[in-house]
Amino acid sequence: MYGITVNRASNLSITKQLYQQIRKNILNGHLREGDSLPATRKFASQLSISRNIVLEVYDQLKIEGFIESRQGSYTSVAAGAFLTQLPSKFSAENQFDTSPPSDMINFRYGIPALDHFPRKAWKKTLTQTILDVSVSYFDYNDIAGCLKLRTAIATYLFKTRGIVCSPKQIIVTSGSTQAFTLITQLLLSHNRKVIIEDPLNIQLQRYLSSLGCQFVPIPIDEQGLQTDYLLKQSISPPSFILVTPSQQFPTGGILPIQRRIQLIRFARETNSYIVEDDYENEFTFEGSPISSLQELAPEKVIYVGTFSKTLIPTLRLGYMILPNTLMEKFYKLDWYATQQPSAIDQLALASFIDSGQFERHVAKMNKIYQKRRNKVMLELNRHFTNNVKILSNSAGLHLTVQFKAIKFSSQLLSHILHYGVQIYSAHQHVIDKNNTSLLNQAILGYGNLNENEIVEGIQRLKTALNNMD
Amino acid sequence: MYGITVNRASNLSITKQLYQQIRKNILNGHLREGDSLPATRKFASQLSISRNIVLEVYDQLKIEGFIESRQGSYTSVAAGAFLTQLPSKFSAENQFDTSPPSDMINFRYGIPALDHFPRKAWKKTLTQTILDVSVSYFDYNDIAGCLKLRTAIATYLFKTRGIVCSPKQIIVTSGSTQAFTLITQLLLSHNRKVIIEDPLNIQLQRYLSSLGCQFVPIPIDEQGLQTDYLLKQSISPPSFILVTPSQQFPTGGILPIQRRIQLIRFARETNSYIVEDDYENEFTFEGSPISSLQELAPEKVIYVGTFSKTLIPTLRLGYMILPNTLMEKFYKLDWYATQQPSAIDQLALASFIDSGQFERHVAKMNKIYQKRRNKVMLELNRHFTNNVKILSNSAGLHLTVQFKAIKFSSQLLSHILHYGVQIYSAHQHVIDKNNTSLLNQAILGYGNLNENEIVEGIQRLKTALNNMD
Repeated sequence: MYGITVNRASNLSITKQLYQQIRKNILNGHLREGDSLPATRKFASQLSISRNIVLEVYDQLKIEGFIESRQGSYTSVAAGAFLTQLPSKFSAENQFDTSPPSDMINFRYGIPALDHFPRKAWKKTLTQTILDVSVSYFDYNDIAGCLKLRTAIATYLFKTRGIVCSPKQIIVTSGSTQAFTLITQLLLSHNRKVIIEDPLNIQLQRYLSSLGCQFVPIPIDEQGLQTDYLLKQSISPPSFILVTPSQQFPTGGILPIQRRIQLIRFARETNSYIVEDDYENEFTFEGSPISSLQELAPEKVIYVGTFSKTLIPTLRLGYMILPNTLMEKFYKLDWYATQQPSAIDQLALASFIDSGQFERHVAKMNKIYQKRRNKVMLELNRHFTNNVKILSNSAGLHLTVQFKAIKFSSQLLSHILHYGVQIYSAHQHVIDKNNTSLLNQAILGYGNLNENEIVEGIQRLKTALNNMD
Repeated sequence: MYGITVNRASNLSITKQLYQQIRKNILNGHLREGDSLPATRKFASQLSISRNIVLEVYDQLKIEGFIESRQGSYTSVAAGAFLTQLPSKFSAENQFDTSPPSDMINFRYGIPALDHFPRKAWKKTLTQTILDVSVSYFDYNDIAGCLKLRTAIATYLFKTRGIVCSPKQIIVTSGSTQAFTLITQLLLSHNRKVIIEDPLNIQLQRYLSSLGCQFVPIPIDEQGLQTDYLLKQSISPPSFILVTPSQQFPTGGILPIQRRIQLIRFARETNSYIVEDDYENEFTFEGSPISSLQELAPEKVIYVGTFSKTLIPTLRLGYMILPNTLMEKFYKLDWYATQQPSAIDQLALASFIDSGQFERHVAKMNKIYQKRRNKVMLELNRHFTNNVKILSNSAGLHLTVQFKAIKFSSQLLSHILHYGVQIYSAHQHVIDKNNTSLLNQAILGYGNLNENEIVEGIQRLKTALNNMD
């Protein structure tokens, strides 16, 4: 009947095969309203399958309304079960493929040494966690994250950054990106004005713009945000003030205490919050890590941190410190808005921190990144001698360089790309595009490049710049 | 000087102790602008610490602008480094504590048997994954998720649900909750009108309302959404239509094929998308799982699924199937909007599915849930005989019951609570509050209650209802 067959080799059960074929024949109109279906015994023997299978399939089709039985056994197709099929093309099929690996040397910034992730140690911790974790953690958990991890982070931050806060103020987030989405939900309610540094990371710019934020860009200098601008202009209270005081992105300026104090006074006077994006500050090559803004005014500063740089991005583990005044509002956020990482990962990270493994890993990586930074500087100076000026090199996973008489236009960057090396324009992060001060600066990330790649990369850069027309 | 001491027992390094004390003294004004700091040699011997420590601390304080050196060695406090300290109270301290465990028997719905999560098998898969995974996965990944998992899900859905789609159409999400946040971002852009079933899960109601959605509630009957209402009223095109066709929530109605076809025709005519929330459909106790709406009209239906019920909620692993027509728009979503779960978890789940372990686990759990459902029904009938009517019991992790002459007011529910058992009102999910049809229905979830707890729970319910005044 209607070419219905069963294939015992298929990984679909015979029941499913039969069900789907009859169903299809009804939907596409081969079997029409009122058409009767074969009696179960006859049908079963035709297909040489068990009658129970046919009975089961008929029952299922009845439950879903495809067929109906009259006077017991006699079964026929129900009304209204025909549907015109529209062709569905798989245009997605060969689209959006992730680009194939190449021998391109990519000075990407904001990315750690992926091949140095401590797989074995993490595996060990994770294994123990899965076996030990109490069943209650398998449930939906506190939207602020697991208290064990929040406590571990608070202890770690006190020890390494002198930050004093209650574990209850620490919110575990899915990477620092989610911290920013939560912050906007907490603070953007009415006023959409945001005071930011110019330049500001382009991705963050795009995100805030997509939310309809109205930027008040403040210029920076080699010491970061020029806080006197806050006093100059009469600025009405913003939703929040977004800063990178430990190392301005991307220029690396360290905000001096005097400006930090001006900034905090401004926040207090305008009764607004400061968001401190403390990205990559775990890695410092001169002196200790810069103290945080948060510890100067815990009541006014939201501190944002991440484990994407100290461990790996894919773990999606980050956090923020909320002032107590915002805790209640946070717990009122819609549950759908708060995506927390797996409690298993959270508890594993807590053990990893408490056991001291995390701090040792960071210390080890700090040495590695310092070597890589030094190699970049060495090679740049070797190839470009006094035509290059290296800025922003005291911390983090990138440095910015200034080349004499070179503007990093998109044309130049793609010219360089043709020589198998990718570097980035600092200017792309600038908001006031009339400001050309960063046009001659490039960002070179070295976090995920080993020393050989760095040597080769700078060599290629040299060749590329030599062959400019 | 200023009571500065070092404590060798502290877990803070001496350098940090000295740095923090001097810094504090400057911030709180004990050390004022121009005050000179002790010469490094003298200071070191006073504290009987190495001079290098003092030099290191002074350098750090200089970098941060607290102090400045004149004529080489002579060091003094810089201007503008004084900040009024505001008292910061830890009001959060003893707040927001997760409620202590009690012997309450909670017939919560939408929650699986947490203690049946296959820890050992998952541990084994995860361990292997961490050791085998290619380094490239440690990076930020495709916002749609890992192709290996998307392929595993597509294969699984074809085998178990007859769903035909390209792996590229499957978007891995952080639980089904994130699927809904993505869907609203894809479809809510301008038109905020959403056609929904009445009742609709209260949490989803709240979330959509928080986004300013304008509901067009369609009444349901024992067969689910009454699609003829779509034709009756002249409804202008909505942003999307949200339905639970496999088992209406919470009443459990199965949408018959005729209504499914009417629904799809409506979507095609109004050129709108249907969101199919296929919650808990993996667990079916009569016949096979109901076929999906998605396979009837893949070009019009967004299918939402989750692993929170088949595995555990905390893994935060869910997915949706997008029509090809939406793929391009999805990839244009802001990166911040798309929070994906850890690639390690994604790849582990892929192996778990590919190895057949997942399907076996679901089959095993299906038997367990069926036993629990039967026990609930048995106990209800035993205690309440013909005063109780059990509805919606063919699938999922809850059933709804109707008690003769009982209205589940919040007073009654809290009265019941006093007897150590928690059940839920079906009426709370109703949108049109004039509609009292569900007032006498209660939701009893049995996913995370063993048979003894069920027996005890129904016994307590009986006692509670006997002692109503």
